Amino acid sequence: MKEFELIQNIFQASVMASTQGRGDLLLGIGDDCAQVQVPQGQSLVFSMDTLVEGRHFPFDADPVDIGYRSVATCVSDLAAMGAKPAFFTLGLTIPESDPQWLAGLAQGMAELAEPIGLALVGGDTTKGPLTITLQVHGYVEPELAVKRSAAKVGDDIYVTGLLGDAAAAVPIVTGELQVSSERFDYFYDRYWRPKSRLIVGMALKRVAHAMMDISDGLAQDIQHILKASDVGAVIDAASLPISAELKQWQPESAVTLALTGGDDYELCFTAPKEQAGEIALITQTLGLPCTKVGEIVAEGFSIQGYHGEITGWQHF
Amino acid sequence: MKEFELIQNIFQASVMASTQGRGDLLLGIGDDCAQVQVPQGQSLVFSMDTLVEGRHFPFDADPVDIGYRSVATCVSDLAAMGAKPAFFTLGLTIPESDPQWLAGLAQGMAELAEPIGLALVGGDTTKGPLTITLQVHGYVEPELAVKRSAAKVGDDIYVTGLLGDAAAAVPIVTGELQVSSERFDYFYDRYWRPKSRLIVGMALKRVAHAMMDISDGLAQDIQHILKASDVGAVIDAASLPISAELKQWQPESAVTLALTGGDDYELCFTAPKEQAGEIALITQTLGLPCTKVGEIVAEGFSIQGYHGEITGWQHF
Repeated sequence: MKEFELIQNIFQASVMASTQGRGDLLLGIGDDCAQVQVPQGQSLVFSMDTLVEGRHFPFDADPVDIGYRSVATCVSDLAAMGAKPAFFTLGLTIPESDPQWLAGLAQGMAELAEPIGLALVGGDTTKGPLTITLQVHGYVEPELAVKRSAAKVGDDIYVTGLLGDAAAAVPIVTGELQVSSERFDYFYDRYWRPKSRLIVGMALKRVAHAMMDISDGLAQDIQHILKASDVGAVIDAASLPISAELKQWQPESAVTLALTGGDDYELCFTAPKEQAGEIALITQTLGLPCTKVGEIVAEGFSIQGYHGEITGWQHF
Repeated sequence: MKEFELIQNIFQASVMASTQGRGDLLLGIGDDCAQVQVPQGQSLVFSMDTLVEGRHFPFDADPVDIGYRSVATCVSDLAAMGAKPAFFTLGLTIPESDPQWLAGLAQGMAELAEPIGLALVGGDTTKGPLTITLQVHGYVEPELAVKRSAAKVGDDIYVTGLLGDAAAAVPIVTGELQVSSERFDYFYDRYWRPKSRLIVGMALKRVAHAMMDISDGLAQDIQHILKASDVGAVIDAASLPISAELKQWQPESAVTLALTGGDDYELCFTAPKEQAGEIALITQTLGLPCTKVGEIVAEGFSIQGYHGEITGWQHF
């Protein structure tokens, strides 16, 4: 089967862009380039992520899970800018052209992409070791994109959702660790199905000073905000939002996982204290906790109430 | 070395975007997303290509060559739309973090990217088998993008430059075949350094009906135009532009290589007969031959004066 037909057949029904009814998509898959007209008054934001089998997800995983998580981890970067998702491209390297596997991947991608209006508009399929590169694209008003570089001294530091579950789940999803089926179900889902934080990201674009997503662990990732904004931070370990499931299962390492574990894809943001009411309202409206975990200070970095080492995911 | 610093250090001096002096680049590498303001009156076109070591280029090749050719093959898709190059992203999967190898790759990319104003604005670096995914982005007036679907019966079919050299070069660059140093130099360059056809692509955007780049061989690739435009074609084998070097070296297989060999990254386009004068002028002005090789007909596909099999690069 030819490359183009392969993608066409498998992805058409689910995630492939229909240019009908979408004024921004002038040309989708099937030409040398895709063509997009960015809506008036909007800028384009985009992020590329690569996932390698055996490194970013376990070998022989369910292709539906791989598909969902690939899009989720990448869309998380759009959320962190306060952007509205628009379209994505897919660079797929696969060892063989297995239609059933591809259909699973497409299904997983569509489960997340379709409801948020993220359409597949192009890409490339090649033969080789399983590697998935996605580029997601979104729209945001040029001046409202939430950057890492705008944290101010005195800002509160918040995180969305719960931290540590996905890192705790790793030995479960790799099969290293056997747990009860109830525990398996909860943590399996927490690893493979990171919740999209797009809505809260958009809600925060007029409220937050700085924002980013947590992929490599809070303690490591927040350094990017501190460096880009030339400020410091104090984190309060006791305030970290940790699930009852994780506290019950691993009472002693839960805080370490929440601080240093990656893969949760929650948002970390800073906002001036006078926005606390607005943030409480967002929390209440969306039913998603935004928890204050610390404060931006002039310099330095410390974690109150924590004495372990501060590490995070190492890319090399 | 951390991922971010790795990219930063190696690529900064050469291909990385400076947002200074570029009104379109609002935010470059170092945040969750890059941010771009597409210029007024322009649409965005983009294409993603993946190159896998051992499949799309030989094992243990010179990283400078790999860098140059990666950008060249991808930029070719911008040329085929008549677009002006703007920026690119790089998904780089490498087995180990070798600064010297990376510096070579960056140098090769910069050699092509810098003079054409194509800036690196984002990407991802991961550990794994050598795989390079690029997404190149360009600008073109929404209505002037040259699609595959607009060929008309009676159009002349043209190709730019020379065909067949890159395919003939494959056994030379893989080391399978030993040739004289003069022959080696010519064909090595023809494989690793496909000439960018951006200027001619832009010159043709008001002249050509349909256009695409030839990556998998003319006889195979033109089928995409025929299918998208719902037309047929007659190609004249005797008219194919073939280098003196190839004719002299392989007089018997030169036409087959020109028809079925990939990797030249020349443009194939169709234009109404009344544009012949304009095309001759473009040829003359740019010093680049645009050679008429056939004609669009109502249906069917034939190659006059050729009796071999019609094949091309198979992706799987």
